[in-house]
Order: sequence, then C-alpha cells, then structure tokens
Amino acid sequence: MSTPPPPFKAKAVVCRTIGAPVTVEEILVQPPGPGEITMKVAACGVCHSDLSATNGTIPFPPPIVLGHEGAGVVVAVGEGVSRFAVGDHVVSSFVSMCGKCRYCAEGRPQLCDQSAKTTVSLPDGSVRTFDLQGKPLGVFAGCGTMAEYATLHVDSVVKIDREMPLDRAALIGCGVMTGFGAVHNTAHVQAGSATAVFGCGGVGLNVIQGCCIAGASTIVAIDTSDEKLELARQLGATHVVNVGQQDNVVKTVRSLTQGGVDYSFECVGNGQVVSQAYGALRKGGTAVVVGVAKQDDTTSIRTATLTFDEKTLKGSYFGSARPAVDFPRLVSLYRQRRLRLDELVTHEYSVDDAPQAFADLAEGRNARGMIVFR
Amino acid sequence: MSTPPPPFKAKAVVCRTIGAPVTVEEILVQPPGPGEITMKVAACGVCHSDLSATNGTIPFPPPIVLGHEGAGVVVAVGEGVSRFAVGDHVVSSFVSMCGKCRYCAEGRPQLCDQSAKTTVSLPDGSVRTFDLQGKPLGVFAGCGTMAEYATLHVDSVVKIDREMPLDRAALIGCGVMTGFGAVHNTAHVQAGSATAVFGCGGVGLNVIQGCCIAGASTIVAIDTSDEKLELARQLGATHVVNVGQQDNVVKTVRSLTQGGVDYSFECVGNGQVVSQAYGALRKGGTAVVVGVAKQDDTTSIRTATLTFDEKTLKGSYFGSARPAVDFPRLVSLYRQRRLRLDELVTHEYSVDDAPQAFADLAEGRNARGMIVFR
Repeated sequence: MSTPPPPFKAKAVVCRTIGAPVTVEEILVQPPGPGEITMKVAACGVCHSDLSATNGTIPFPPPIVLGHEGAGVVVAVGEGVSRFAVGDHVVSSFVSMCGKCRYCAEGRPQLCDQSAKTTVSLPDGSVRTFDLQGKPLGVFAGCGTMAEYATLHVDSVVKIDREMPLDRAALIGCGVMTGFGAVHNTAHVQAGSATAVFGCGGVGLNVIQGCCIAGASTIVAIDTSDEKLELARQLGATHVVNVGQQDNVVKTVRSLTQGGVDYSFECVGNGQVVSQAYGALRKGGTAVVVGVAKQDDTTSIRTATLTFDEKTLKGSYFGSARPAVDFPRLVSLYRQRRLRLDELVTHEYSVDDAPQAFADLAEGRNARGMIVFR
Repeated sequence: MSTPPPPFKAKAVVCRTIGAPVTVEEILVQPPGPGEITMKVAACGVCHSDLSATNGTIPFPPPIVLGHEGAGVVVAVGEGVSRFAVGDHVVSSFVSMCGKCRYCAEGRPQLCDQSAKTTVSLPDGSVRTFDLQGKPLGVFAGCGTMAEYATLHVDSVVKIDREMPLDRAALIGCGVMTGFGAVHNTAHVQAGSATAVFGCGGVGLNVIQGCCIAGASTIVAIDTSDEKLELARQLGATHVVNVGQQDNVVKTVRSLTQGGVDYSFECVGNGQVVSQAYGALRKGGTAVVVGVAKQDDTTSIRTATLTFDEKTLKGSYFGSARPAVDFPRLVSLYRQRRLRLDELVTHEYSVDDAPQAFADLAEGRNARGMIVFR
C-alpha cells in the first residue's frame, strides 16, 4: 500500500463564531479525492456574502473557511479528473454545476440542484479542510478559497486563459459575474435602453459596466456615497444620484428618464430599495433584484401596478451565470479593455490583514477588497 | 349644407352612481366622426371590470355606458375610414392601438399610450353617447358596447371572420384574450410544463384552456367553488383544489407538482393570492398576475426568495394582447374546436335583464354572463 500524499498546510480566513471578527489560522487541506482538484490560491475577493456569513445574514453553520471568489493554479488533480491538469489556471464558482439536473439541462446552472448540497461542503457532504486539532472545517459554498490552498470539486471550478492576471480573474468568480450577468443574462438589456442601478458596491458597479457594454443610453447610478458614485461615473454611469441628498429618489429617476426606466437593478438587498427600483420603472419595465436580503426582509408593491403597467419583478442569482460559458467571456472582455477590473480593486490585503479587510467592507470603504496570497 | 345623419336610438346599460345597481336607459348614439365606425352590437359579455366600474374598484367617473367585450356588425363608417366597411363583423378592444407610440412600435399595443386617453371617451376626449336630455355619457374604455349601438374609434375595433358567431366572438374582446394571452403572450408556457391557476372565473378558465392548448402537462385549478372547478376540469385542468377544504394551498400545489410549478397565474386580484401563486413556484419559476386588484391592495413577498430562487413576478395586462393579431387567431382556434367558448357562457340575458346579470356576477353565479341584443 502506498502512503497517501500529505495535506497542504495553508493560512486561511475562518469564521468560528457568528458576530465575531474572522480569524486567520493555519489549517490542513487534504489533497483532491476523485473528481476534485487542489488549487494554490493566488487571490480571493472579499465579498459581501462572506461578510453576511460572519454576521448571520446568510445562515452558515460555523466553523467555516471563508472565500468563494478565488483564482489560482491547479497543483493536484484527483482520480478520474480529465478536464483539468496541474498548471491550469482556474476560477472558483460558488454554484456547482452538475451538468445533469433539470436546471443544468435547461441552461440555468446557477440554479443547479447540487448547489443545495454544497452550502458548507463538497457535493458528497464531506470536506478536505481541517484545523490543526484535526477537526473538520466547513467551506463557504463548496469553495473556501480564502486560504493558500483549496480543494474543490471540478463542478465548482472553471478553467481560464493563462494570460489573465489571477488577482483580476478572482473578481469574475462572484461580484463581476453577478452584476454583469444580471444585465446580460437575466434582464437582456437592449442597446439604447434607460436603466437605473440602486447601490454601487461590488455588484452594482458591475451592473453599471454591464449596462454600459450592453449599450444602455441612460445609466442612473444611485448610492449614499459620493466616492462610489464617482467610481460609478468612471465605469459608465451617465447620471449619479446621492440618495442622502434627495427627497424622493423614485421621482428623481423618473424625471431624469422621461417617465421611468426600462430596467432597474436593486443591488442592496433591502425590500424598501426593491420597491424604489420597481417604482422607477416605466410601463412594461423590468426590475431585477440582485442584492441578497436578510431572511425576514419583505418587499411590498401595489398589486394593481403589476397588472395595469405590466411590470416585472425578477430575481437574479449569480447573474444567471453559466460559469463555463460566461467566465471565459468576461476574461476576453477584460483583455480587450472593455470590462474594467483594475478600477474595482480599491485595496489589496495580505491574508494576515483579512480582519481589516472585513472591517473595511462592513464600513463601505471598498468597491472590492482583494486578499492576495504571496 | 347637408343635414347631418340622425343619431341611433339605443337601449344601453349605464352606471349613474357608484355603488348603485346599473340602469337600462334609452340613449342616443351619434354616427361616426372621422376615423370612427358605428357598430350594431350583437352581444356583449358582462365582465368583472364592468362590475368594478360600478362599485368603484376601478375608478371611472359616472355616468358611463358600460361594456367593453362587444361584438357586432359595422353599420356606418366615418370620414377617412378605409380598413372597415359597412357589414364588417368586428370585436371591440378596450385598449386602443394607435400603432404609433413606442409601445405599439415594440409590439406591445396593450400598453399603448393612447389608452390613457380613452378611459371614458374616444381618443379625442369627446363621446358620441348622450342621454335623452342631451347630456353626454362617458363610455367604458372607449367602448361602451353594452348598448344596441356603439360608435368607436377604429383603433378600438378588430375585424373578424363573418362565419364566427358574434355572441361567441364577444368573449374574445376581454376575458378570453386576457386569460389565453397571459399564458401564450406573457408567460410563454412551454409544452410539458407544470402550471397552477388561482381563481377560475371568466379569466382563470381561459388561462386553463390556454395552458391546455400550450401543452402544459399539469394544470392545477384552484377556487372556492366546486362548480367552477368542475368547469375548470372540463376545460383542461388536470387537478382541482377547493381552497375552502385546504389548510395550506401552497403546500398542496407544491406536493402535487413535486416541488412547485413552472408557471402560476393569479386571476383573483388580491395580494394574498399573489403571494400564494408566487409561493407555489419551483426555483426559477414565473408567477403571472392577471387579476385586477383594488388600488390600495399590496403584495408582499420575501425578498431573499427573489434572488436565491431566481423567481419572477410579472404582470399581464389584457393578456399582453396584440388584438389585431390575436383576435383572429382566437377565432381560428374556436372554429377548429380547440378553444372552447360555448361552455363559458353560462347565462344569456336580454339588455333589460342587465341588472340581474350584474347581480349574478357579483354573486359568482356565472363563468360568463352574456347580454344578447335582438
């Protein structure tokens, strides 16, 4: 019998207690089992969903290794893996794509049934991550890429061009895909449309550049922060509205757009903002809800407006991503200098500074903070 | 100078006071002006929207001549009218179709901007209907077809095949189009889908036969009346659920359909029922709101379900009708015995019995009552 290969030692960002700051720990990452790969993580974005896991907005049972917006290089492949090889550059996908369920079959892998099984583990329910006492650690959405090494199922990674910088590729794994996809995959914004984007954080800014690339003629960016609105303008917003300085944001948007927008995007995760996004629509318009709200948050709309104005309220999960198709497309758009990623990374952190990265995110100080592993 | 032609004397059903029974009066209908036609009405359906006008649910300033689901024969054409001739058979459309506004141009005439001007008059703001004291009477949605004669703008009528019985054609002008169109034009139900229809009145029954013609494999009909559910079954429902006998209709529908339907239709006009229709969806499903709710009615949904389950809540107005295209299609489907209209008319009334027709509607006694003029 051969000796099993040793585990990878890795510094990792862990949520041990809901409501407490994240910890940076040394963990052990087991090499890949059948159908799995191990990646040496180059960079991992600090996403609002990671923060939501630490404060309980999205319920995950701790302890878990955080991170789901990671990019890196494959360093080991498990038994039976043929689509990936050591040296491949990959981006993690926080939805797994089994390729077999009804949702995958109908081209909606973002709703893949397997994802329900990968909330804090790999698809088979087990994990490859352990603390130094040998206790298992869950992994955020089957990823756990806020660590120097991560072992993922092949259904949770997408291969990308090696020319693509990994500290930019990481962004594609969540925030960019979610925002861009809400425009291109969920709403199918048409060139010349009028649009409004409520919330200009890591996702909203990508909705804005998605609208810009789609050829929207009007893009109204709405936020409470002048800094984010300035970035919104750089990424393509044609108008910016600071909510704090407005009595009635719905009225403002409707007046800027001669009676309302064709498409609005809610990127905050708050029912009151959803109502505003819906209220800003013209007859026949579509409001897309991208923001992740708390479990008990409700959205309230006047029923008669649905019928008489034939409006649509539509959720978008992960930008209705087909990761295998969309990640490479986003890489191409970046390399053609049409999709802008450099501007999004407002701060880079070492893994040791992860607690600061989370604090900065909570305070709204970053478009995107990026943990870079060296 | 030639003498202007005399007005048509007509018995008509009038709403004089909100909350009071309708009155049957003799009125004068002026012959058509430029761009208008006068039809001798053969039959006019008694629709829930007419009832809503009489009780204030839909705000119309009285007095108005009721009726918007009418069919008849053209007896006079105004100056410049070339698309219609005396003897043509026509069905009224309660949305006008100017053919010029952005909504008409994008194939959504149901949202035509001109309709805002035809709430109680012809598009130019005037009416051709007067009482015997010479006082003007408004017309419901530019139609006022619950009268022996009605003068309408050409944008509010569609020509149909003369072989089509007029007392069946009338139904196409509102209830049938609204229900069938919600399935085929708004939701685009795919063959083999699972569907649920909340409310089996004049509109809901046509959603059911719309789903049946679309090839839905499961059609769950939901109502409080066993009689309506029996009719629902005759028109294609595969399962019927009497809400009165159910603790939890959402759970029942989800269990009948292995986790939820692809499409649900709300045909009641009540935010609580909208929430149920939304709750009955599987991941990625679409709830279509067809029912006309009171102005202050609200719909409340959990915001996070929009995003995580990528659900859609969509209004359908007049079945997203393109009347010029869809009315003749519905006529064809009836003549091929695929669309069933005879079963929908559960009672015919003379114009003198109109007050009884409204009382029966209010009591839920009819799938559709039809006023037939002789």
